[in-house]
Amino acid sequence: MVKALERIDNRLRWIDQTRLPAVVDYKESDDYFEIIRAIKRLEIRGAPAIGIAAAYGLAVAVERAKIYNPDFIRKVGSEFKNARPTAVNLSWAVDRVLARLNDSEGNPISDAQPLWEEAEEIHREDEQMCEKIGANGAELIEDGSTILTHCNAGALATGGIGTALGVIYTCRNQGKNIKVYVDETRPLLQGARLTAWELMHEKIDTTLICDNTAGMLMRQGKIDCVIVGADRIARNGDIANKIGTYPVAVLAREHDVPFYVAAPASTFDDNIKTGDDITIEERAPEEVTRGFGRATAPDDTKVYSPAFDITPHNLISQYITDSGNKPGGREQS
Amino acid sequence: MVKALERIDNRLRWIDQTRLPAVVDYKESDDYFEIIRAIKRLEIRGAPAIGIAAAYGLAVAVERAKIYNPDFIRKVGSEFKNARPTAVNLSWAVDRVLARLNDSEGNPISDAQPLWEEAEEIHREDEQMCEKIGANGAELIEDGSTILTHCNAGALATGGIGTALGVIYTCRNQGKNIKVYVDETRPLLQGARLTAWELMHEKIDTTLICDNTAGMLMRQGKIDCVIVGADRIARNGDIANKIGTYPVAVLAREHDVPFYVAAPASTFDDNIKTGDDITIEERAPEEVTRGFGRATAPDDTKVYSPAFDITPHNLISQYITDSGNKPGGREQS
Repeated sequence: MVKALERIDNRLRWIDQTRLPAVVDYKESDDYFEIIRAIKRLEIRGAPAIGIAAAYGLAVAVERAKIYNPDFIRKVGSEFKNARPTAVNLSWAVDRVLARLNDSEGNPISDAQPLWEEAEEIHREDEQMCEKIGANGAELIEDGSTILTHCNAGALATGGIGTALGVIYTCRNQGKNIKVYVDETRPLLQGARLTAWELMHEKIDTTLICDNTAGMLMRQGKIDCVIVGADRIARNGDIANKIGTYPVAVLAREHDVPFYVAAPASTFDDNIKTGDDITIEERAPEEVTRGFGRATAPDDTKVYSPAFDITPHNLISQYITDSGNKPGGREQS
Repeated sequence: MVKALERIDNRLRWIDQTRLPAVVDYKESDDYFEIIRAIKRLEIRGAPAIGIAAAYGLAVAVERAKIYNPDFIRKVGSEFKNARPTAVNLSWAVDRVLARLNDSEGNPISDAQPLWEEAEEIHREDEQMCEKIGANGAELIEDGSTILTHCNAGALATGGIGTALGVIYTCRNQGKNIKVYVDETRPLLQGARLTAWELMHEKIDTTLICDNTAGMLMRQGKIDCVIVGADRIARNGDIANKIGTYPVAVLAREHDVPFYVAAPASTFDDNIKTGDDITIEERAPEEVTRGFGRATAPDDTKVYSPAFDITPHNLISQYITDSGNKPGGREQS
């Protein structure tokens, strides 16, 4: 299984996901600015992965600066938290590392070791979380199923086998015969570039579709269930996930296709009441108008390009989490 | 208003729509093979426009070959009919021209003149049809409306001002303030490349979105109605239109947004019972995996890329036609 993130001595190593699938480019850095830049540029993406990267990034920053002043470290932590606004894991992971600023006696730390330890612990927990989500989700999936997924909630998005794709890998490891349709996921094509690449690397039967084709497949009865990840889950169960998740959820209910959300406990944000309270990041127009290296719309076209949408809880059949499966708000038919 | 097609002496002139918006490239030819190729390559596209192009194409072929044998002309007609399988207008237009193979006394024609006349008549009727659709549709649209459209059912798709976009142009000419959201329409981006270009050329307030973003906009209450074209309409009112139309129709009903289909009478095909009997063209995988000149998915990725989907009549609020507006099968709320 591909590793999106790895600690190499005092550096972080990552796959530059903007270059996949054409080039598998591993980058390494001991400069935390480069790690923040990699998060902003989506070289590292996926809610769990950016949390892990930020945790390692804090350790990288302190290791290199040799400054153990809590104010400095908190300031670096804020920079990581602000790298992207929607996923809760980013601030969750940063806060966990910041809790190690002082030793057990309340004195400031004198080396970066405790921060590395916490980052590695977050990474290890994420790996185990993926395994548990995989096992819990696999209970819902019958042999011979055809699954639709959107965006990338796989190994590339996490510290382990992934969340939505973790379920698929676990089914495969259990000997189940699984087919997967992958939404290409405009504008940045994480489905085409990352999910199709990951699944094919793992020899899963994969078919790529344009985002607007899922409706037709469901109408033809070709999809047995949908599994997606989530970037943030509000207290009422509404989720923020990659733009295009909401229409898939509406179509799934229309066709009586179960709609599963696979996400770790850390994605649930009790501070947020409903999905409508979640801040939605907007992306640059050029990702739509010249996202492939040449102009595909007039140069001065106005564009609306939110990175995420909100899927209300009443469209969700089940949440698949590391602590078990929980029913969503969708009425069973 | 831009002209997609024009007769220039004994040649057909067209805009190569595959090169828009970067280059406005007018092509001319007196070789019918090139016209068929232009239809297959989508240089000329849109159900009404390919009908007109095929009608002119038959005249072009006979003019150049100077062969008036009905078998030859019928053979050329079949080649045009087979250029693309889904739109009914293609065979409808060809059959109209073929009806002029003999003069009023039943003798074979002795020059291409009657074929040119019929092609020009089809073109003129299409122009008038667009005007009528525009006027009929505009009755449904209030001042200040925000309209969502998918693909391109505009001047570029017809011999006149367009069908779905014809309604928008007519509203604008009536002094109504109209905003338009345009689905980019993967894989070939007719929305981004053609509709945004056309609307901006006509100074209409236009915002481009990825196909997967329409759901979020409707949930936010930002869309007042949807207007799309149709490539074929079955006897029961089901329509075939560009892939991605069906999910928009499901979302429109979910959000109580009227869903209008603007199409000429020639699009209604009484020989086809329901949408499921309509042949759906499949497009090449490369349009999805390397549609923009570089690989955006692994090279050997399996792809499912239907050019059209079926929207059942019970998701359609009204049909806007040149002979008036007809209620669709969607229950009014």
